[in-house]
Amino acid sequence: MTDGEPIRDIAHLGTVELFSPKIDRSLWYFRDVLGMEIAHTAESAVYLRGYGDYATATLKLTPAAKPGVGCVAWRAVSPQALERRVAAIEAAGLGLGWSNGDFGRGVSYRFHDPDGHLMEIYYAEEKFVAPADSRSALKNQPQKYPARGVGVRRLDHLALLANEVPTNRRFAQDVLGFQLREQVIFDHGRTEIGSWMSPTAAHHEIAYLRDFRGGQGRLHHVSFWVDTRDDVLRAADILSENGIFLEVSPSKHNNSQGFSLYSYEPGGNRIEVYTGSFLVFAPDWEPVTWNEEERGTGTYWGSALPDSFLKYATPDIGTGKDTEIPQLPVFF
Amino acid sequence: MTDGEPIRDIAHLGTVELFSPKIDRSLWYFRDVLGMEIAHTAESAVYLRGYGDYATATLKLTPAAKPGVGCVAWRAVSPQALERRVAAIEAAGLGLGWSNGDFGRGVSYRFHDPDGHLMEIYYAEEKFVAPADSRSALKNQPQKYPARGVGVRRLDHLALLANEVPTNRRFAQDVLGFQLREQVIFDHGRTEIGSWMSPTAAHHEIAYLRDFRGGQGRLHHVSFWVDTRDDVLRAADILSENGIFLEVSPSKHNNSQGFSLYSYEPGGNRIEVYTGSFLVFAPDWEPVTWNEEERGTGTYWGSALPDSFLKYATPDIGTGKDTEIPQLPVFF
Amino acid sequence: MTDGEPIRDIAHLGTVELFSPKIDRSLWYFRDVLGMEIAHTAESAVYLRGYGDYATATLKLTPAAKPGVGCVAWRAVSPQALERRVAAIEAAGLGLGWSNGDFGRGVSYRFHDPDGHLMEIYYAEEKFVAPADSRSALKNQPQKYPARGVGVRRLDHLALLANEVPTNRRFAQDVLGFQLREQVIFDHGRTEIGSWMSPTAAHHEIAYLRDFRGGQGRLHHVSFWVDTRDDVLRAADILSENGIFLEVSPSKHNNSQGFSLYSYEPGGNRIEVYTGSFLVFAPDWEPVTWNEEERGTGTYWGSALPDSFLKYATPDIGTGKDTEIPQLPVFF
Amino acid sequence: MTDGEPIRDIAHLGTVELFSPKIDRSLWYFRDVLGMEIAHTAESAVYLRGYGDYATATLKLTPAAKPGVGCVAWRAVSPQALERRVAAIEAAGLGLGWSNGDFGRGVSYRFHDPDGHLMEIYYAEEKFVAPADSRSALKNQPQKYPARGVGVRRLDHLALLANEVPTNRRFAQDVLGFQLREQVIFDHGRTEIGSWMSPTAAHHEIAYLRDFRGGQGRLHHVSFWVDTRDDVLRAADILSENGIFLEVSPSKHNNSQGFSLYSYEPGGNRIEVYTGSFLVFAPDWEPVTWNEEERGTGTYWGSALPDSFLKYATPDIGTGKDTEIPQLPVFF
Repeated sequence: MTDGEPIRDIAHLGTVELFSPKIDRSLWYFRDVLGMEIAHTAESAVYLRGYGDYATATLKLTPAAKPGVGCVAWRAVSPQALERRVAAIEAAGLGLGWSNGDFGRGVSYRFHDPDGHLMEIYYAEEKFVAPADSRSALKNQPQKYPARGVGVRRLDHLALLANEVPTNRRFAQDVLGFQLREQVIFDHGRTEIGSWMSPTAAHHEIAYLRDFRGGQGRLHHVSFWVDTRDDVLRAADILSENGIFLEVSPSKHNNSQGFSLYSYEPGGNRIEVYTGSFLVFAPDWEPVTWNEEERGTGTYWGSALPDSFLKYATPDIGTGKDTEIPQLPVFF
Repeated sequence: MTDGEPIRDIAHLGTVELFSPKIDRSLWYFRDVLGMEIAHTAESAVYLRGYGDYATATLKLTPAAKPGVGCVAWRAVSPQALERRVAAIEAAGLGLGWSNGDFGRGVSYRFHDPDGHLMEIYYAEEKFVAPADSRSALKNQPQKYPARGVGVRRLDHLALLANEVPTNRRFAQDVLGFQLREQVIFDHGRTEIGSWMSPTAAHHEIAYLRDFRGGQGRLHHVSFWVDTRDDVLRAADILSENGIFLEVSPSKHNNSQGFSLYSYEPGGNRIEVYTGSFLVFAPDWEPVTWNEEERGTGTYWGSALPDSFLKYATPDIGTGKDTEIPQLPVFF
Repeated sequence: MTDGEPIRDIAHLGTVELFSPKIDRSLWYFRDVLGMEIAHTAESAVYLRGYGDYATATLKLTPAAKPGVGCVAWRAVSPQALERRVAAIEAAGLGLGWSNGDFGRGVSYRFHDPDGHLMEIYYAEEKFVAPADSRSALKNQPQKYPARGVGVRRLDHLALLANEVPTNRRFAQDVLGFQLREQVIFDHGRTEIGSWMSPTAAHHEIAYLRDFRGGQGRLHHVSFWVDTRDDVLRAADILSENGIFLEVSPSKHNNSQGFSLYSYEPGGNRIEVYTGSFLVFAPDWEPVTWNEEERGTGTYWGSALPDSFLKYATPDIGTGKDTEIPQLPVFF
Repeated sequence: MTDGEPIRDIAHLGTVELFSPKIDRSLWYFRDVLGMEIAHTAESAVYLRGYGDYATATLKLTPAAKPGVGCVAWRAVSPQALERRVAAIEAAGLGLGWSNGDFGRGVSYRFHDPDGHLMEIYYAEEKFVAPADSRSALKNQPQKYPARGVGVRRLDHLALLANEVPTNRRFAQDVLGFQLREQVIFDHGRTEIGSWMSPTAAHHEIAYLRDFRGGQGRLHHVSFWVDTRDDVLRAADILSENGIFLEVSPSKHNNSQGFSLYSYEPGGNRIEVYTGSFLVFAPDWEPVTWNEEERGTGTYWGSALPDSFLKYATPDIGTGKDTEIPQLPVFF
């Protein structure tokens, strides 16, 4: 940490809170279609987890007038690491203060990223202990594979929109200590369209993408992990059979080499079912950058992404600035 | 048919009836674990189907004191084909006569194979029409993919034990018109251990395997199709999580190149989850034969099959003649 | 055959001849990228096969000024079946006469389909016998899996353009005896856009698609089989790494439920790498038809097909009648 | 690092050196069958890499009279981390001193683990830069996917035998700073059969397994990563077609949930082709332990591991102490 050594105080993405104007349908989507488990039902929210999440809850669904992202929680690697990050956040002037912690948690420290997304950081947490009837045959698996719907294993990452990607990217690097993995930069290096970062060997746990419509605190997508590419293909079948709109059918990203699909949960938020990608073990990884020409060919295998992929985010804020959206395809 | 042309009067395996001494648990296995659908519940039996079976029912579960196979039904390609096969069966002295047909069927003609297994042949049949809430998004799929448990697509094939494999094999070839695809023959061509046959381009829809214990009318296994090798691996996870004994974990057969696993349903019958294999389009296919040495290496990738695979069948009849079972591995 | 019984005289698609203006690059594509084997090199053509093709050759590559399809060969199920089909073809006035047979063949009878595609039918054929160093560890596999490039297993099917789909479809049904499996029909049943047919349990071995540009004897695509959906995904990686244009990246068809990708071989012909789909065993299969609305949603998972998929065929004949191409998406 | 915070100074497993008495055949195995690339050929050794390895070389093949493992190299996360680990190793009395570094490396510090395996630690390293003709279409992939043989992506982990697992495990934890992930412990907690550890989120990068035959410095296996379970199945086909003995055909481990197969490379060393498993992000992961009964069921899906899996290691040292090998199955 001293002498220019990298900060490694964040253990992983912990929980994402999603707002839904159709909470019952959203619950059906996450529980019956994606195959997640309901961990806890409170008055103000429902908490869910994937069968492979070791935490008690990784997704919080909160009823709201509009879709979007609520609090994004990060777990620290130790109590000391938590203190170090809180000090850094406060020094950056973005701190909000300590809270008692959400369901299954000890205290957490809340803050905003520069774009205004609410975040928190915590260390103390309850581990999930499966009830007898959902215990796995595998001692190293938090619970039985449910074999219901898609069967997503765990929360993987999220992508946030930001008016100024560089400001938010630098905050994530300098204050939170994330490593920069890949970037899309247009206009001969002048326009940062997107940056992918991670606190771990996972390729990315967060991305900041440019908000072309000038919103604030908006969400591009939340992503859940499945183990195989066949699971993604099977997910496409299951989502189709359940009448859920697939915005992007299974395809391979250039960036991260992830293999995934995107759908909208009934509340309106974009959800990815994701696998593949690669781990980054190199301590001196050099961020990979892509320009207009390199992204102009589409996803890795050449299928185009729909316009909505650039334009739609939650909450939706209309089409005011769409003329500024680049005509060149910008394939994330 | 004349001039030495092959008989092609059987369209496909239609239904298999299984006896179960634990009907409720067997239903749980086929419905909740394998993911089949209940098509009809009668006083004396429950009828099920896979989501891809075009027929109203392909599996009949009948309560009984012991496990085993009941009636094996074959569909004819036309009314004329049905008549031709009935004439041939009667000429062979194995006919039992016409019946009114089982659930969803028109008349069928019942008979025994030389080993005493009950069979029937029919043409008239109701097609399955999915109720509105289980209609598929695909017009060419009989019903919605259920996304429950393993999700087997359809009935595929079955393997019967026989005291005299050659006699039963010749009956299937000459009287039913099946094509011989592969054989395991030991003792320098003198002992026919097993023969795999089919009325269609599918590699095999029936196999006769030697009953080393000298039983009669017994069942080795019934097999259900899934679309991918990943589905078989996923099935292994699901069966394990549900506490079901896997007699043979996922592996690739030499014979047929099928990729599959075997478990016992709670009633005691051996059930295969199967995919892969290859289609046989050659009209002049030369049956492939395997001797002791060629089978001594185990399954294609070398994993051994357990003793039970040779010894256990339903109904179980004790160990009287086990000393006659070849010491050399006989890998089906 | 009498009494309204179906004709079943064709065993399977035997060989497709492709014309290539860049024969060396085409050979590289089929041998090094798709992983096929060169079976025979003659002065006028090169013959290839997939590792799972039982015939000596299934693809004939012929140097030519323009890409396109040459002779499409069908194997009969017996010498008698061959005679019956020849009689029917002659009665239809489309016969060309007997030829001595191509490489690895006995005599064949040549004819045109109504749109002018050259075809032939044969029975006598040499089986492929692998040389010692390419013999498979599996007795039932014609040769060793090469583990080079994509590794396509065998020729699967082809799709031809026709000015009048109904005329050609009826020829295939009535004269060749193919079964009709699926159709795309627009304008309230008046415009037959495409028809998929098969002589076997394979969903389709030939399709006739409407030639919107009014050409004659043109080719839409030839398709090669791989065993798994993962093989198709891997093929997409391999084709991408070799700089080959993917016209359609891996996706699932509504029609046939096939999972596949399309690329152009360097000579210009569209080639599909294909798997999945389903077998049709029902002797009374009712053809599935799709109208504008049902196809307007794109491929099964919703990804759009590019314009070229409707407009480009080999040989290419310019854009004269493109205004007649339906504005509605027509997804094959 | 202070205040009880975990040591995180090792970035990942860097290189494994294997001894081979049949260097040409070993090269054929790693290059033509596994599909690795030759990075460098020196007088005394050949260096290889997988297409996804970012380092210049990850496998060093050294001709020798007997098979076994040579130097195991670990990369540090920073120059400071390197210094810290060297100090700790020297304090533990196991240091050998600095060397000039192997091919593609800066200086490295050599040491022995308590069981006598040679290891080294380094920071400075050349990154692999692909020559023009093997550059990938993906900017974030070190080189083109070769599409030759199995196509392993990268070095994953290794398993070493040790006379005293606890001593070596504590060395790895306390001196190298690895996290303990899983253990097999028999005799009511008294006999540590194996321990799996990692410096990263990867489940394990090293395992110590008990050397029942009392050897020293021996190797159980080296493992290479492929991306999908289908790749492992395909590897089984490729190894079988090449006449390579599969000691363990594709199966799923209880421990780590890895999906893999084991073969012997022609030099005699056991090589695993591996995928699946799960990442460990929890900073407070509690090691999972398995006793006799829990391992007595075999691999996760119940297939037995052969005796050789417990008894054979390289170099082989005969059967002197085999009577001490537990009769209970010990499934790794």
